[in-house]
Amino acid sequence: MRSTMMDAPLLVSRILEHGSTVHGTADVATWTGAGSSRMTYAQVGATAAQLAHALRDDLGVTGDQRVATFMWNNAEHLVAYLGVPSMGAVLHTLNLRLFPDQITYIANHAEDRVVIVDSTLIPLLAKVLPAMSTVEHVVVVGGGDVAPLGDSAAVHRWDDLLRDKPERFDWPALDERDAAALCYTSGTTGHPKGVAYSHRSIWLHSMQVCAPEGFGLSPADRELAIVPMFHAMSWGIPFAALMSGASLIMPDRFLKGEPIAQMIEVERPTKAGAVPTIWTEVLSYLDTHDVDVSSLKEVIVGGSACPPALMAAFKERYGIEIIHAWGMTEMSPLGSVSRTPAGATGEAAWGYRITQGRVPAGVAARIVGPLGERMPADGRSVGELEVRGPWTTSRYIGEEIPDPEKFRDGWLRTGDVGTLSADGFITLTDRAKDVIKSGGEWISSVELENALMAHPAVLEACVVGVPDERWDERPLATVVLREGATASAEELREFLGERVARWQLPERWAFIEAVPKTSVGKFDKKQVRSSYAAGALDVTEVTR
Amino acid sequence: MRSTMMDAPLLVSRILEHGSTVHGTADVATWTGAGSSRMTYAQVGATAAQLAHALRDDLGVTGDQRVATFMWNNAEHLVAYLGVPSMGAVLHTLNLRLFPDQITYIANHAEDRVVIVDSTLIPLLAKVLPAMSTVEHVVVVGGGDVAPLGDSAAVHRWDDLLRDKPERFDWPALDERDAAALCYTSGTTGHPKGVAYSHRSIWLHSMQVCAPEGFGLSPADRELAIVPMFHAMSWGIPFAALMSGASLIMPDRFLKGEPIAQMIEVERPTKAGAVPTIWTEVLSYLDTHDVDVSSLKEVIVGGSACPPALMAAFKERYGIEIIHAWGMTEMSPLGSVSRTPAGATGEAAWGYRITQGRVPAGVAARIVGPLGERMPADGRSVGELEVRGPWTTSRYIGEEIPDPEKFRDGWLRTGDVGTLSADGFITLTDRAKDVIKSGGEWISSVELENALMAHPAVLEACVVGVPDERWDERPLATVVLREGATASAEELREFLGERVARWQLPERWAFIEAVPKTSVGKFDKKQVRSSYAAGALDVTEVTR
Repeated sequence: MRSTMMDAPLLVSRILEHGSTVHGTADVATWTGAGSSRMTYAQVGATAAQLAHALRDDLGVTGDQRVATFMWNNAEHLVAYLGVPSMGAVLHTLNLRLFPDQITYIANHAEDRVVIVDSTLIPLLAKVLPAMSTVEHVVVVGGGDVAPLGDSAAVHRWDDLLRDKPERFDWPALDERDAAALCYTSGTTGHPKGVAYSHRSIWLHSMQVCAPEGFGLSPADRELAIVPMFHAMSWGIPFAALMSGASLIMPDRFLKGEPIAQMIEVERPTKAGAVPTIWTEVLSYLDTHDVDVSSLKEVIVGGSACPPALMAAFKERYGIEIIHAWGMTEMSPLGSVSRTPAGATGEAAWGYRITQGRVPAGVAARIVGPLGERMPADGRSVGELEVRGPWTTSRYIGEEIPDPEKFRDGWLRTGDVGTLSADGFITLTDRAKDVIKSGGEWISSVELENALMAHPAVLEACVVGVPDERWDERPLATVVLREGATASAEELREFLGERVARWQLPERWAFIEAVPKTSVGKFDKKQVRSSYAAGALDVTEVTR
Repeated sequence: MRSTMMDAPLLVSRILEHGSTVHGTADVATWTGAGSSRMTYAQVGATAAQLAHALRDDLGVTGDQRVATFMWNNAEHLVAYLGVPSMGAVLHTLNLRLFPDQITYIANHAEDRVVIVDSTLIPLLAKVLPAMSTVEHVVVVGGGDVAPLGDSAAVHRWDDLLRDKPERFDWPALDERDAAALCYTSGTTGHPKGVAYSHRSIWLHSMQVCAPEGFGLSPADRELAIVPMFHAMSWGIPFAALMSGASLIMPDRFLKGEPIAQMIEVERPTKAGAVPTIWTEVLSYLDTHDVDVSSLKEVIVGGSACPPALMAAFKERYGIEIIHAWGMTEMSPLGSVSRTPAGATGEAAWGYRITQGRVPAGVAARIVGPLGERMPADGRSVGELEVRGPWTTSRYIGEEIPDPEKFRDGWLRTGDVGTLSADGFITLTDRAKDVIKSGGEWISSVELENALMAHPAVLEACVVGVPDERWDERPLATVVLREGATASAEELREFLGERVARWQLPERWAFIEAVPKTSVGKFDKKQVRSSYAAGALDVTEVTR
């Protein structure tokens, strides 16, 4: 039996239309270094229409052609976020922090036809533009010299292009499953891989961002969106703001502790979102300056776990709640938010706060063991986290068949290992590739490392899985001792034995000068494994 | 360009699965007259699976067959709400307050195959069951004599049927646009008309009910769902509760002021929803008894506007915010909620509170004038409200072509007349059929009545449109004077002239003994018009 409900597609243009009329007096403030420039959502709607006219009539953008952005968080980027998908074109947010060859690879792979760029980013774009083979037009927002962009593409000024364009656009009726926006992930190996969000997935994801168990956005909110709009659709905040009527505060290129603290004092956000590292800087600025941050009640952090000490410091000194969220570019990106369940207080509440959070109805989650077996959601059984739902990708762009390393039976393999509790809270401990597969069981390298680093003599400990004839893999512990400290492998193994199950204890130990690190400062486990394979480590065997 | 997002359908079974696992410890409390019985959402999930097994295996329910409920608000009704659509069958909530011939018409029109009934409602069902020609099975919840049900259908006991059934069901993969539930509206003329909600519309509507600008439901909430589950899917609260993890408190058949007040004291709801009339009763009980209602922060009222005095009394005496919501069975039903915008205080806030509320992104709204022309959303221009969106119906069940009286160009004509403000707030004044169409303009009969009833001599005033050669229609004012009071038509017309535009002033006046009323106590305007047409009124003409 078919329903009688209207066949009303979930389109970004409807979010834009709603936000720019019903919430037309809400606004986006863009930090200029000294105060803000301001654009109401009514103006966002009018400017988005002008942009669509300019792209279609002047630059010849038709159908689902890709329009890229190479921009900081600001009002014009917000206009592009809403306007480009609304006209049926596909928004592609280029991550300006990637290596130049990754940026050009991505632009070429997506076949970007237009790039909108902040004038402050012209020097950066100039380096990669000549290698972008499909880009025909560059639109520059703001003043400044455009000469470095050369002549590989036609260069236009945003203001010139939009001037006198109509402030209304007859947004087309689209299929809600059409692509609305692209985002590429920069894996550690191989080329970046892209996902294509649909109008439908953006709508459903936005509703979840607005939900009380999401970010809880309403017209009473002013959201400071620090997470760059070139990262994972800026967690969906730009769309959710227009949907809910929450005003936005955008930091543009001012991402240090001091300007963020100033923005909070001047623009009085109620909520904010950013990676934890920025909040460390903000905290140290607040601790040494007199800044009024009383408007800010809640900060969502994602990207990596927040140090508990930072969470406690913000709460105790400034009354600001820091809340974990977890997600992936492949998930639009919101996967979970760690709001404490009603009734949990003290230690119990803290136990929830440090998890990656609880999944909403739109994210089904399961834990899968080393042999592909389903593990119970009991908060103890460890396995790889797999997810599915209407805002999770089923494959990467260009894949005929989903990569079995990343997808299994219609589920996304997150590559993260951890537990899922009966009440839907995710706790992640390892990347799947760093887990040690031993005799059909998984050993967490991170757990062993943390336990080892609690020993007073240990400065750093890096644990990796190495081949073992009987068990497939066994842990190898590489240890850096503190200057002047001594400890034997036997002593450390005994210390560890008081903290983890006996079968997890490493038999192979190596004392090293320093743990090799990647370019972003993480343990380079690949290099530790190859040093071991090459016989370059002085390994002690302890099995007692 | 197609998106890479998963093709994950929005199904009621996913809401059930999420609610009964992630929020498995949340619960539904059903009032028993003295305390509550309690069922966790984990048990709701298990019982829904048992119900699905019983319906399929014992009663032979297949495909999209209709399973009706004839029930109060209780845990078993919640199980049916989730379980019946999850198995692919279609839930049909029968409104037990309708006339018997309407109930049988509806059950026959929907071709209900099973009716689940509360044992306390057996006497009522017994009256209509013999005329339900498609019903083969009746499932009785609770004890009591089933003999009155006769033998026109097989009678089963809920407990017997579900006993020993598996607590898991392999919910089928359905099309999200399949019908999940039916609801019929009892129009004032003709047969009731049905709408068929889809899994998709229920999902999207539930997300809006959960949204901060909806009911704002989270696991911290305990929602007292007084609005009967046989009315407009009980405003979507049963689905939204499982989706959000909010616990539920169900009054069963105890709908008077006293038990409701007791439920509030014992079960400590944070929020509630019901028509205004119930709150009048609750208020008078609270004012005369010592009851702790401190848990209750917010009450959503719908169905009709709440008297401002009632809103003020609850706020001042009990700290409870009464908030208007507006909707229709045709809209799942949520159309708008009147939350005050940030920054509006005092008189300005009150101006928002008394509206029908603000539309969300999922409800596009427009005002259409008497000639079918689009009116501005300026808060002043009066016309019929038309809406559209993914949880609004496009037609009634069985209609090949949508009835043009109810649908226009893909929009639902609400039959309500009023204004729409620039910031999306709806203010409704009249039913379209009661508006007076005069010379291409609309005159609000309700506005004239309210203005007239402000005159000290006037007890009641009922204004209707009557045929006029020159203007199509003109207002006729029928007036009941207070006992002992006197006032001439000239005097009343002059009084009115200070309050409304001159061209709206009635030329035709009749003093009557009493305004005829419908069975639910509303002015019976149809009868006033026919009395006038039959020349049964003593009409004075005043045109000065």
